[in-house]
Amino acid sequence: MYDIIVDKRNGKELTREQIAWAVAGYTGGSIPDYQAAAWLMAIYFQGMTERETAWLTDAMAASGDHIDLAAIPGIKVDKHSTGGVGDKTTLIAGPIVAACGVPVAKMSGRGLGHTGGTVDKLASIPGYRTELPKEEFCRVVKEVGIAVIGQSGNIAPADKKLYALRDVTGTVENISLIAASIMSKKIAAGADAIVLDVKTGRGAFMQTLEGSLRLAEAMVAIGEKVGRETIALVTDMDEPLGAAVGNALEVMEAAATLMGRGPGDLRRLCLELAANMLLLAGKGDGDIDGCRKMARQALTDGRAFGKLKQMVAAQGGDPSYLDEPNRFPAAPFILPVKAPATGYVTAIDALAIGNASAALGAGRLRKEDDIDHRAGLILKKKIGQWVEKGEALAELYTAAADKGEEGGRLVAQAIEIGEAKPRPPKLIHGRVTAAGRVLGSRQL
Amino acid sequence: MYDIIVDKRNGKELTREQIAWAVAGYTGGSIPDYQAAAWLMAIYFQGMTERETAWLTDAMAASGDHIDLAAIPGIKVDKHSTGGVGDKTTLIAGPIVAACGVPVAKMSGRGLGHTGGTVDKLASIPGYRTELPKEEFCRVVKEVGIAVIGQSGNIAPADKKLYALRDVTGTVENISLIAASIMSKKIAAGADAIVLDVKTGRGAFMQTLEGSLRLAEAMVAIGEKVGRETIALVTDMDEPLGAAVGNALEVMEAAATLMGRGPGDLRRLCLELAANMLLLAGKGDGDIDGCRKMARQALTDGRAFGKLKQMVAAQGGDPSYLDEPNRFPAAPFILPVKAPATGYVTAIDALAIGNASAALGAGRLRKEDDIDHRAGLILKKKIGQWVEKGEALAELYTAAADKGEEGGRLVAQAIEIGEAKPRPPKLIHGRVTAAGRVLGSRQL
Repeated sequence: MYDIIVDKRNGKELTREQIAWAVAGYTGGSIPDYQAAAWLMAIYFQGMTERETAWLTDAMAASGDHIDLAAIPGIKVDKHSTGGVGDKTTLIAGPIVAACGVPVAKMSGRGLGHTGGTVDKLASIPGYRTELPKEEFCRVVKEVGIAVIGQSGNIAPADKKLYALRDVTGTVENISLIAASIMSKKIAAGADAIVLDVKTGRGAFMQTLEGSLRLAEAMVAIGEKVGRETIALVTDMDEPLGAAVGNALEVMEAAATLMGRGPGDLRRLCLELAANMLLLAGKGDGDIDGCRKMARQALTDGRAFGKLKQMVAAQGGDPSYLDEPNRFPAAPFILPVKAPATGYVTAIDALAIGNASAALGAGRLRKEDDIDHRAGLILKKKIGQWVEKGEALAELYTAAADKGEEGGRLVAQAIEIGEAKPRPPKLIHGRVTAAGRVLGSRQL
Repeated sequence: MYDIIVDKRNGKELTREQIAWAVAGYTGGSIPDYQAAAWLMAIYFQGMTERETAWLTDAMAASGDHIDLAAIPGIKVDKHSTGGVGDKTTLIAGPIVAACGVPVAKMSGRGLGHTGGTVDKLASIPGYRTELPKEEFCRVVKEVGIAVIGQSGNIAPADKKLYALRDVTGTVENISLIAASIMSKKIAAGADAIVLDVKTGRGAFMQTLEGSLRLAEAMVAIGEKVGRETIALVTDMDEPLGAAVGNALEVMEAAATLMGRGPGDLRRLCLELAANMLLLAGKGDGDIDGCRKMARQALTDGRAFGKLKQMVAAQGGDPSYLDEPNRFPAAPFILPVKAPATGYVTAIDALAIGNASAALGAGRLRKEDDIDHRAGLILKKKIGQWVEKGEALAELYTAAADKGEEGGRLVAQAIEIGEAKPRPPKLIHGRVTAAGRVLGSRQL
């Protein structure tokens, strides 16, 4: 291990064998924390080549279980978001793709900090089982076309152990390490191809566009090297996606979107993610425009909504909640946040909104915290909209008045009002494939 | 600690408080190895400012015992060598300085790897006690003017712990960390002022002249910042110093030098080290040439040799061995290494000679190894000398024929013979004081 540390420190490219040996040794306990920490810091400074990053990904994916989805016919395309506020795209894009005949077998994470988790959102539907035995999971995918469960089993334990170490040694912020961490889990979870939604902006892990593009490129390069075709969209997370933030509130908004009544930004992004998933599954004869058309069709004719309800029913949930959202239990307090001035909404800090939602009860700060599925907030205005003083900027949902006060303070601070009409925020900043990056939303 | 790691990683200058807190926490066990390892690697890449390096030195010096030499009147000047082969300068320069009325209270290290230790050399004199209670140590210095004992007590435990960690995490090779490590021990050992002998070349820790100069400058800067005036000489360790390598053999050569019969390079270096020690002790009215004259006088008139014998007697050793070196027990085997060709000696790899001496029994590879005080070798030729094929290049001293064979092989490989007369090797490459570096031996 000493030689591996020094080679990396001196800027040498490590071999596949060196990386595999280091990852296996650290996971198995024969390499101590302090050598792994020195190695990670050397990687932080010297970086990794595309080959090294792919070898690291492979080694971490191989460190635990490999979910075998071979029982499900067809190309299994996974979708992964780097985490945002109000991001309920899995609940919409997944059913769209399934409705087009492409199987979606998704293992999703739980929320932590200011971002929510898909599994927590689905768990707000009474009866919904977020854990299924593997056979049942595959059966639901085969019969319904889609299943979404929580991550279980021993997926990429090397990544788990390395991430915990990075978290306390100042070595999180390295593109290669971040990219390998994400991709190793997707590969171990059985994906044949991957669509990535790399968020950028104030509420995102990567706050600059260039950083987000580089992360996207690193992950697409890994996908190419390990034989999993990968496309990444770099999308906005300066303001939250859609209007709803919070678990049941986001399920309701997803259902509304599948019924044709959702916010425009959410609808557009879900259609684009679904189209790229369809493309990777071999639909539309390799023509992204054809895939976009298919996705739009499945959304507008109600087939996608039908798929979501079928899936919820198959996983033990009551699908009637999706048709009649007023069946969801109401939060004890519903409080408006009023505009302190008249003007245009010029900024909505997604990070601050995520923290406000967590403060209202919708999130967890530590893994073991409970969450209140009813809690969260609905934005009544988004960037570029006009607001009169005293009009509602947002509506807060919470179980306690003091939480409402804290959440209201955070939301009020998060929203800026100005006199000049701001440029409309760009939703999709770029698209990265193995062929390179395309910037702007011209291609959409 | 996380913030301290990230600050350093991002190139920020740490505060005195941050450094003191990190060092104390790591030494005390509240900061784990892996965070210290990440911090050290960040320091490796980002370096430390002169202030940070001085604060690190102070923090490490303060981590254990501080030897109080206040009972000994006068300015206590310590001398430290970064480690070489055949370096017996303490046994010569120390008595010269003591003979000029400057107290020498020296704690010396034991040898490890290819370099010897002063304490091991002195221990080859029958009866010599390398461990004295502190009161006795001070009494010998006061009465005789000089005492040399092994390092004992709890000197800079933070350095010990950090060095052990650096050794296994690829973070040894950083000028600031090396400089702070050396200086912290000197300061904790009670030095008022310090003369450093920074070796450069194949047998040295720093192999390039520029690296050695930078290390010298870093240590002089620390000395200035912590109020211990420091002068560093950068001296040659491409070939060994003098002719003798091995413990009793080096004591004999030191005695011969003090009797006026030693090798020229050894004599010159010892006089220069002694002169700089005298200068820092306030002798010669701040005039280095005056100090050189004093040193030469004390050597040539035999007072320095008298001091060495007095010290040996005061520490329990039999000084008659110094007058009659044939009293030292002889090694069972004395074997010549013969020149394979006729020509000039063009190179003698000091590192290889050090390893040969260790192989003959004079060194230890691990701390717990025993050494054979009789073992070692005498170089019969040095760089620039003419040798006839079959003539002796060196004489090996060892207890076993197989060790002699191994040592002979190493020595033969270490010495190069060529047709062109090489340039005479430079002994003193430069001198570094708080005023800056002076290169060349013009100043000598």
